[in-house]
Amino acid sequence: MKHNLTESYPIVKNRYEALRARNMRLDISRGKPGPDQLNLVNPMLSILTEDDYLSGSGIDCRNYGGVDGLPEMRQIFAEILDVSASDVIIGGNSSLNLMFDRISDFCTHGVCGGIPWHEQGAVKFICPTPGYDRHFNICQYFHIQMIPIEMTQTGPDMDAAETLAESDPMIKGMWCVPVYSNPTGCVYSDETVKRIARLKPKAPDFRLFWDNAYTVHNFAENRPVIPNILKECTQNGNADMPLVFASFSKISFPGAGVSAIAASENNRKHILSQIGIQTVGPDKLNQLRHIRFFKNADGVMEHMKKAAEIIKPKFDAVLTAMEEELTGLSEWSKPKGGYFIHFRAEENCAKRIVDLCGQAGLIITEAGAVYPYKRDPKDRDLRIAPTYAQVDELKSAMEIFCAAVKLSYVEKMESINIATKN
Amino acid sequence: MKHNLTESYPIVKNRYEALRARNMRLDISRGKPGPDQLNLVNPMLSILTEDDYLSGSGIDCRNYGGVDGLPEMRQIFAEILDVSASDVIIGGNSSLNLMFDRISDFCTHGVCGGIPWHEQGAVKFICPTPGYDRHFNICQYFHIQMIPIEMTQTGPDMDAAETLAESDPMIKGMWCVPVYSNPTGCVYSDETVKRIARLKPKAPDFRLFWDNAYTVHNFAENRPVIPNILKECTQNGNADMPLVFASFSKISFPGAGVSAIAASENNRKHILSQIGIQTVGPDKLNQLRHIRFFKNADGVMEHMKKAAEIIKPKFDAVLTAMEEELTGLSEWSKPKGGYFIHFRAEENCAKRIVDLCGQAGLIITEAGAVYPYKRDPKDRDLRIAPTYAQVDELKSAMEIFCAAVKLSYVEKMESINIATKN
Repeated sequence: MKHNLTESYPIVKNRYEALRARNMRLDISRGKPGPDQLNLVNPMLSILTEDDYLSGSGIDCRNYGGVDGLPEMRQIFAEILDVSASDVIIGGNSSLNLMFDRISDFCTHGVCGGIPWHEQGAVKFICPTPGYDRHFNICQYFHIQMIPIEMTQTGPDMDAAETLAESDPMIKGMWCVPVYSNPTGCVYSDETVKRIARLKPKAPDFRLFWDNAYTVHNFAENRPVIPNILKECTQNGNADMPLVFASFSKISFPGAGVSAIAASENNRKHILSQIGIQTVGPDKLNQLRHIRFFKNADGVMEHMKKAAEIIKPKFDAVLTAMEEELTGLSEWSKPKGGYFIHFRAEENCAKRIVDLCGQAGLIITEAGAVYPYKRDPKDRDLRIAPTYAQVDELKSAMEIFCAAVKLSYVEKMESINIATKN
Repeated sequence: MKHNLTESYPIVKNRYEALRARNMRLDISRGKPGPDQLNLVNPMLSILTEDDYLSGSGIDCRNYGGVDGLPEMRQIFAEILDVSASDVIIGGNSSLNLMFDRISDFCTHGVCGGIPWHEQGAVKFICPTPGYDRHFNICQYFHIQMIPIEMTQTGPDMDAAETLAESDPMIKGMWCVPVYSNPTGCVYSDETVKRIARLKPKAPDFRLFWDNAYTVHNFAENRPVIPNILKECTQNGNADMPLVFASFSKISFPGAGVSAIAASENNRKHILSQIGIQTVGPDKLNQLRHIRFFKNADGVMEHMKKAAEIIKPKFDAVLTAMEEELTGLSEWSKPKGGYFIHFRAEENCAKRIVDLCGQAGLIITEAGAVYPYKRDPKDRDLRIAPTYAQVDELKSAMEIFCAAVKLSYVEKMESINIATKN
């Protein structure tokens, strides 16, 4: 891609310096809900009364036990994920923790009784990129080699995924955020999901890490519905392949949500045998708060509509600014849900843009973060997280961002010109 | 030990059968607080109001972040454990989870940058016995060989501990419950704690798993104070040796407490680097509930006095029954705090007693559970957990227990007599 920026260096530079002089302080680096969105959930803070601690089935949520979670909480996740309540295991406040613990356990104990990954040599994961930095961090922590493949508008490049998974027995997993992917915001197409479900991995202990973090985080007219990965995999003889993760972190409170895994009976059996050693059970009172507040999946959907009314204008503010300032200069995603906008800058400009934003008081996700090992080979992909800031703040932030983009482009052009002259 | 049971087999048998006919159903197998004790904490269920979500330092407890916990929560643990708030990292609802995660991480990543335990061969732990079954389960899960040593009235047999730790580089850790040990209820003497702190382990990556679960769980006149293990170890050049664990599981709600680790700066640095990959942080709203309810360590101590008024009569009911029925026949611990009574039966009788109790509807902790690999070499040690049941239930339970003990003894005597006659 080649931009057609017509403004000259002094004009662009002056504009940037004027913005920098405002001494702004704003962080749009992480996918955090804003206080305005969290306020919607405040009634949950006081939803339990002093004598409200028994679940519908009479479980005293104050005491130990219930490693797999309250039946009603499993039911809510089941409805959201279109699975059975019996497919679901409830976790603590973090689905990232569930993913980390799975990979850790696979390294030390193998997959469902198989050979521990750490005894098998250099384990590899397929990583559609741009992707989620915290997924990549887990792989890196456990010395799992990350093989990037391209994330397209319809999901991972399935030709590449099939070739890798079906030829190399050391490819043990693939990260997927199937709905409103982090950061591109794409929704996997039906065909992509079906091709994933039909994979015939060379490794018998291959697992799909299906992080369905944003399945209800929709601000389009209709919530996208993708094929049910558990059912599709089962129909293709891959019942044990997927591990489906979800959480309330961006539905209720990010610090105090509830997480879950849905998986086959065989997977659940092994997961529970590990969790039963690790803990006496997750926080059932917090599950009860969620049950009382949301009641069921319909309650969750209703709530997410209210959240969308807060989130959509924030995305609109970012997208409008980009459209006004950067049309013809760059490309970016226009998601209908999720938490991020993916911005594709000119090559070799991403780091400089982050740097220029930072100097002007605007913190955006570090360049490279959406790639394994933080290595963006073309130094061009950026992630914008509009949800935490307020709309007026985002407008100011985008003035800086767009000015930084332009400045990085003219700087690059100048240096090319100078190099050409020399 | 030789009992002097004077009652004959038919009398003892009839007594047991009469109790069995009552068809009781009671479980005193686990250290669970009773509903009466939990009721003391019920105001915590509704202690937060809709607009109460900011910590004292202005942190929005609803949102992400705060991997090491709220400052005020760290301060409460610091006061309880006699350390600095900066020594403390807050966890989720389970200190067992913190211990599991430490061992898991040591297996995969080594201790503070050392060689991963799983790459070093057969790692071993010193396990004072009788001890806590869930500790032993973690070791077994990670294939850590457990070396039992004797638990005395003043703590672990330190001659044995020193010999093992100081001679064998594969001895990587030792489990300790220093106050009201599970299950014997002993409190480590000052001399024992100081000898532990002076250990010179052969393994540079030896860690003391100091599970201070019952430090405030006192029902004696005065709370026992033992030397501060972090300070003692630091004074002896062992600053990095101890990992101190504590939790509110048996102070507030077992399903919804708050856990913590206290450790040296070097340990904390490595722990946080792992936790930062695993999660975005523990549940700060639940920390805030604890801060609002208990306020500070004094609040915790006051609360534990109220809990003691509920717990002590339960222990008294068990101890009185044992004294009346079993004096001269067996020995048992008479703890002044904690959650358990340790009963030492005649050799080869523990399994039979559990079996007889079970047949009469009374579930007690399985025989062998207090030993590594569930192997009690003399089949004699049992654990009684009086806290969950009500006093009148405990009286009925102890009728069964004492009858089962006696029946097992006369059965054993009979079989010896028969064997002798043959």
